Amino acid sequence: MRGFASDNNASVHPEVLKAIAEVNNGHAVGYGGDKITENALQLFKQVFGQETETFFVYNGTGANVIAIQALAQSYNAVVCARTAHINVDECGAPEKLSGCKLLPIDTVNGKITVAQIKQYMHGFGFEHHSEPKVVSITQATELGTVYSINEIREIADYVHSMGLYLHMDGARIANAAAALGCTLAETSIKAGVDVLSFGGTKNGLMFGEAIVFANAQLANNVKYIRKQSTQLHSKMRYVSAQFIALLQNDLWLQNARHSNNMAALLANELKEVSQVNITQPVESNGVFATVPKALIDPLQNEFFFYVWDESRSEVRWMTSFDTREEDIKAFVSTINRFL
Amino acid sequence: MRGFASDNNASVHPEVLKAIAEVNNGHAVGYGGDKITENALQLFKQVFGQETETFFVYNGTGANVIAIQALAQSYNAVVCARTAHINVDECGAPEKLSGCKLLPIDTVNGKITVAQIKQYMHGFGFEHHSEPKVVSITQATELGTVYSINEIREIADYVHSMGLYLHMDGARIANAAAALGCTLAETSIKAGVDVLSFGGTKNGLMFGEAIVFANAQLANNVKYIRKQSTQLHSKMRYVSAQFIALLQNDLWLQNARHSNNMAALLANELKEVSQVNITQPVESNGVFATVPKALIDPLQNEFFFYVWDESRSEVRWMTSFDTREEDIKAFVSTINRFL
Amino acid sequence: MRGFASDNNASVHPEVLKAIAEVNNGHAVGYGGDKITENALQLFKQVFGQETETFFVYNGTGANVIAIQALAQSYNAVVCARTAHINVDECGAPEKLSGCKLLPIDTVNGKITVAQIKQYMHGFGFEHHSEPKVVSITQATELGTVYSINEIREIADYVHSMGLYLHMDGARIANAAAALGCTLAETSIKAGVDVLSFGGTKNGLMFGEAIVFANAQLANNVKYIRKQSTQLHSKMRYVSAQFIALLQNDLWLQNARHSNNMAALLANELKEVSQVNITQPVESNGVFATVPKALIDPLQNEFFFYVWDESRSEVRWMTSFDTREEDIKAFVSTINRFL
Amino acid sequence: MRGFASDNNASVHPEVLKAIAEVNNGHAVGYGGDKITENALQLFKQVFGQETETFFVYNGTGANVIAIQALAQSYNAVVCARTAHINVDECGAPEKLSGCKLLPIDTVNGKITVAQIKQYMHGFGFEHHSEPKVVSITQATELGTVYSINEIREIADYVHSMGLYLHMDGARIANAAAALGCTLAETSIKAGVDVLSFGGTKNGLMFGEAIVFANAQLANNVKYIRKQSTQLHSKMRYVSAQFIALLQNDLWLQNARHSNNMAALLANELKEVSQVNITQPVESNGVFATVPKALIDPLQNEFFFYVWDESRSEVRWMTSFDTREEDIKAFVSTINRFL
Repeated sequence: MRGFASDNNASVHPEVLKAIAEVNNGHAVGYGGDKITENALQLFKQVFGQETETFFVYNGTGANVIAIQALAQSYNAVVCARTAHINVDECGAPEKLSGCKLLPIDTVNGKITVAQIKQYMHGFGFEHHSEPKVVSITQATELGTVYSINEIREIADYVHSMGLYLHMDGARIANAAAALGCTLAETSIKAGVDVLSFGGTKNGLMFGEAIVFANAQLANNVKYIRKQSTQLHSKMRYVSAQFIALLQNDLWLQNARHSNNMAALLANELKEVSQVNITQPVESNGVFATVPKALIDPLQNEFFFYVWDESRSEVRWMTSFDTREEDIKAFVSTINRFL
Repeated sequence: MRGFASDNNASVHPEVLKAIAEVNNGHAVGYGGDKITENALQLFKQVFGQETETFFVYNGTGANVIAIQALAQSYNAVVCARTAHINVDECGAPEKLSGCKLLPIDTVNGKITVAQIKQYMHGFGFEHHSEPKVVSITQATELGTVYSINEIREIADYVHSMGLYLHMDGARIANAAAALGCTLAETSIKAGVDVLSFGGTKNGLMFGEAIVFANAQLANNVKYIRKQSTQLHSKMRYVSAQFIALLQNDLWLQNARHSNNMAALLANELKEVSQVNITQPVESNGVFATVPKALIDPLQNEFFFYVWDESRSEVRWMTSFDTREEDIKAFVSTINRFL
Repeated sequence: MRGFASDNNASVHPEVLKAIAEVNNGHAVGYGGDKITENALQLFKQVFGQETETFFVYNGTGANVIAIQALAQSYNAVVCARTAHINVDECGAPEKLSGCKLLPIDTVNGKITVAQIKQYMHGFGFEHHSEPKVVSITQATELGTVYSINEIREIADYVHSMGLYLHMDGARIANAAAALGCTLAETSIKAGVDVLSFGGTKNGLMFGEAIVFANAQLANNVKYIRKQSTQLHSKMRYVSAQFIALLQNDLWLQNARHSNNMAALLANELKEVSQVNITQPVESNGVFATVPKALIDPLQNEFFFYVWDESRSEVRWMTSFDTREEDIKAFVSTINRFL
Repeated sequence: MRGFASDNNASVHPEVLKAIAEVNNGHAVGYGGDKITENALQLFKQVFGQETETFFVYNGTGANVIAIQALAQSYNAVVCARTAHINVDECGAPEKLSGCKLLPIDTVNGKITVAQIKQYMHGFGFEHHSEPKVVSITQATELGTVYSINEIREIADYVHSMGLYLHMDGARIANAAAALGCTLAETSIKAGVDVLSFGGTKNGLMFGEAIVFANAQLANNVKYIRKQSTQLHSKMRYVSAQFIALLQNDLWLQNARHSNNMAALLANELKEVSQVNITQPVESNGVFATVPKALIDPLQNEFFFYVWDESRSEVRWMTSFDTREEDIKAFVSTINRFL
C-alpha cells in the first residue's frame, strides 16, 4: 500500500539502489577520501557552480544545523517561518547544537517576505539581544508552496544588504525546481542563497543529504562542524553513489516532476469533492485540505497520512516519486466512499 | 585493491545489500514505525534480553554521544581510556553534545582497570568538580585487544558500587565476541554493561549502529535525545533490514571470525619478519607494529593504511570481513620486498 | 541626576551597604559555607516556607537559566511572553545554556493566559517536537503590569495539570507584592510557582539574585548547575548580607512601595499632558507612553531613559527606590517645557 | 579567626569598600555605560597597554570560559596543566559553555613547558581530532609556583608559532607580579599572553574579575559572549570602582606582597617542624606540605584549610592580604602543640 504520509515513506528509487550495488566492491578510503565521492563532489560543482563547496551528511536536520553553525555564532539568531522544519520538526536540534535563538514568522502559506523579515532587523550591536545573522527559507515550503526565483532574489538581496546570510532548507528543492521549470542552481545558489541543504532522501535516496556552500570561504570550518555534529559517514561512497545517480540523467527531475504531477492529479480529482477544501496552492508534491472530522480515522485505516492541524481538521497528503495514478484514484474513491 | 586502513574501508556484505533490496518495495512508515523495524528490534531483544531497549542511529559517534547524554548530566564526567574513540576520534562531539568532561586513563593496551578507574573516584557531591557518572570501555579496544568477560564484570561491579553507569563502545563488539567465543550479550549487557553502542558499519553494514540499553528505564528519554542529536533516520527500514541480516544466521559472527582470522594470519606471517615488531596482542582484527620508517611510504603507495604513532614508527593494520588470504600474502610479500 | 532608564541605574540602598560593611571582618568560608549565608537561607525559609530551597547567584539571567536547566532537559521547550526578559534580553543565554527552545506568546500587556498557553500544549511524546516542560511568567511583567494572585494560581493549576512546571521571573517581584498588598510568597510559591527568580539588584542591592525552589526535590542538582553556569560566588557572605538587609525590617517592601508610588505619581502628573499617552496600566514601577518623536532626543539629553518601540514612538520610564518626588516634578516640567 | 583555606575566605580590603561607598550616590547608566567604568577601563589601558581591551565579569570561571569562547570554536581543544582551575575546579563549565575538549598535562609543580605542550601539537587539519587552539597557563599556579617572564615568553613564542593563542588564568597574577618584582603587564600581555583572566576577588575585592585582551580584534565578539554567558553585571560601577581602588596607588601590589610575605613567613616557621614537609617551592601565597594524618582533623578544628591530596596527606595553606603575623604564629604554635 502506498500512503500519503510523507515522501520519506517512499522506497529507494531502483536506479539509486543499482548505483549503490555498483560501487559495492573492494575497499575505498573512508570519510569521503574515495574516488566516487570525488566524482560526486565534482558533479555538484557542475550543477551549482565551480566556486561552490559541498558536504554530504546523513539527514536534513544534520544539514540544517551544520549550515547554521557555519553561518552564525551562538549569540546570533535565525529568522524563519513558524512552520519551518528547523522550528517545529527538529526537537530543538538547532538551538542545542548552534546555541542560536530562532525567530519565527507567522505566514499563511509557509513563505516569508522581506517586509516580515524587517520586523526582526533591529538591535544590531546591542549585546542583550540575539543579533540576527541568518534568514532560513524552505523551498518547496513545508506547506507545499514554492518561492519564485524573484522572491528568493528579493529576500537574498535584502538579507545581504543587512549583513546576514540566506540559508535554504531544500529538503524538497527538486520539487521546487521542477515546479518552476528551472535548474537546481537557479532556485538556490544563483538566486542568492549562501548555503543550501540539498535534500536527497525525500526524492528517492536511501539516506544522505548535501550541504552546498556558495563559496569556499563560507565552508571554511565545515568539516570540523560536520564531524563534531555526528554527521560524517565513514563508508561515504554509498552516499556519493546515490547522489551521482540522482544528479545524472536528471533522475532528480524525473522523480520530482512525477511526484508534483501526482499531487496535481490528487488536487484535481478532489475539486469535485465538496467536503474536501484544499487550503494551500498545490505547487509541489503536497496537498493540504480541510476535511470532515469523521473522515479522518477510517481513511487513515486504509491510507497512512498525517493530520496537520487538528483544530481545523486540516490534513496533509504528500505524494512521492513512486506514487502511481492508481494510488490516487483508489484514494479519492475511498474518500468518496466514506463521505 | 584491499587495504588495511580500517574495517570501514570494506564494502557492504552481499547478504546485507540483498536484505536492503528485499525491503525496497512500497511504502513504510517513517522514523521506525514500520514492521521491519519492529522485527529488527524484536531480534535485538532475543539477542540481548527481553528487558533491553534498542535504538538505531547512523554512526558510532552518534551512538556514543546519545549513550552519554542518556546516562549523565552536563556537570558529570566520563572516565575512559586515553585512546578511546570518544576521546580522540570524535572531534569533541561528546563534550559539545553532552557538556560532560572526559577523564582519560593512560593504558598500555587500550584496556582500563578498576585500579585505574579508582583514581577518579573522588569529589562526589563537591560542586566544583565534574562528578564522574559514566565509565566507558571499548570492546574490542582501539588497540585490537579484548576484555575478558571477567574483566568487564569486575569493572561493572565496581562502577555500579560507586553509583556510576558502564557504557561500552562496541564498534567492534562482534570481533570481541568472536574472539572470546561467547555471545554478543555475554560480553556486554550480561556482563553488566548498562548501555552498549553496537557497531554495524565496521562489520559489513552500509550504515547504521544500534544503542542497546540494559533496561527501559535507562532509555526513558532516548527518543528525544536521538532526534535532537540529529541521529534519527527517516527511512528506517533500510537500517533495520541490515541489522536483521547481520543478526540472523550469525552473519555477524561469520564476518567477525573471518576478519579476526585474517589478522591472526597477518600476525603469524609477520613473525618471521625481523624488522616488524608487533606491539599489541593480536586478539581481534587489528595488528599494531613498529616498522622501519623507510618502509612506510612505499608500502602505503601499494596498500592503504594509517600510521598510528609517528614518533615510534608504529602502524595499524586492520582486517575486515572481506580481507582475503591472498591480500595478506601479497601484503607480507610486498613488505618483504621493500625490506 | 536621577534618570528613568531602569531601576538598575539606581544606587545601592544605604542599609544594604551598611550590612555589607558589617560583615566585612575576618575570614569566612567561601562559596556559601559561612554562617551569614546560613542565616540568609534560613530567612528565605521563613519568608517562602520551610520546604523551599534557595540558592544565591549573581544576576537575573543567571537565575533564569539555572531555573530552566533545573526544570527541563535540552529537548524541552519553555513557553513565555514574547516580551519576556528570557526571550528578548538575555542574548540567547537560555537557548545556549539549557538547549531548550523558547515558545513566545504575543501579549498586549506582558501577561500570558491559560488560553494562550494552550496553543502550545500539543505534541507530547512526539520526538520531532520540543515538548513543552516549563511555563515562565514575569512578575511584575516587563511592561509594568502585575498578575493577580488568582491569575497566577490559574496558570499554575493548568500548568501542573499538563505535567509542566511554572517558573516566575521575579526580577521585580517586590514591586508586584507591594502593588498587590500581599507577601512575597503569596504572589509566587504559595500561588503555585515551582521556581522563582527572586530579584535583588533592581530593588536596592549591589549584586545578587536568589533562586527559590518550591521544594528540595526540584533543587536536587542545582548546586552543580549553578557552578557549571558560572554563577557561584566565592565570597558569598557579601551576597547573603545584602539579602538579610533586604528581607529584614521589610526593606524590600519599603523600597518597592516607594518606587511604585513614584511611578503612580509620574503617571498622574502626565495625565494632563495631552501629547503623552500612557499605553500600559501603571501597576508597579514602570510607565510606558507614546510621546511626540521630537520630544525624545532633547528629553534624553537631560534625563536618561530608553525608547521601547521606536516605530510607535513609545518610551519606557522606570522609577526606583531612590527616585524622589522632585525628580518626577523636574522631569514632568522638562517635558512640558519641550512640548 | 583567620584561616588558611583560601584567599577568597578573606574579607574585602577597606580601601575597596571605601571606593564602593564613594560611588554610591545617584544614578549611573547600567551595564558599563557609566563614567566610572570608563575611567576603570582607561586605567586598564594604562596598566596593560593602550591597544588592550578589558571586560569586567563576576568571577574567575566566568572570565576563563569567556576567554576560551573568544579564542576557540567548539571543535577546538585547550591545552592546560592537569591541576588547572579550568580543568578541575569549574565543574565542566569550559566544556559546557565552549564545547571544547581540555587536554591536560601532568606536572610536578603546576607549570607546563613547551616540551609538554608539543605532545598535543599534532592532528592539525584532521577533522576527527579536536584541533588545539588555546594553551592556558595559570599565574601564579594552583600550586603556588610562579612562571618566570622568560618561561612565559618561551611558551608564548611557541604557541604563536603553531597558530595557537595563549591564555593566562591570572586569578593570582598580582601575587606572581609581586614575586617577580615586575609589572602586571610584564608577566602577562607584554610576555606574549593573548588573553588574561585578571583576578580581583582573591586580592581584596568583593566580586569582580577582568578579562584583558591583547588587542581589540581578539575581543571583537566578547560583549555578546559575556552577556550570553550570564556574566554581564548591570550595576557595573560597583565593579569598576573596586578595580580603580585596586590599581590605583598600587593597592594590588601591597596586598599581594603582603600575602606572599605571610606565606614565606609560614614556610620559614615550619622549616624547623620536622613532621611537616613542604612539597612545592613557596613562590607566591600558598604553602603545600605533607603532614601527619593525625594532625589534620584537630588542626582543622581550629583553623580552616583544605586537604589537597588525601592519599599523600598533603595539605594546602593559603595566605591573603589580611593574614597577620600573629595568625601565622598562632597557627604554627598550634601545629607544634598537636605534634
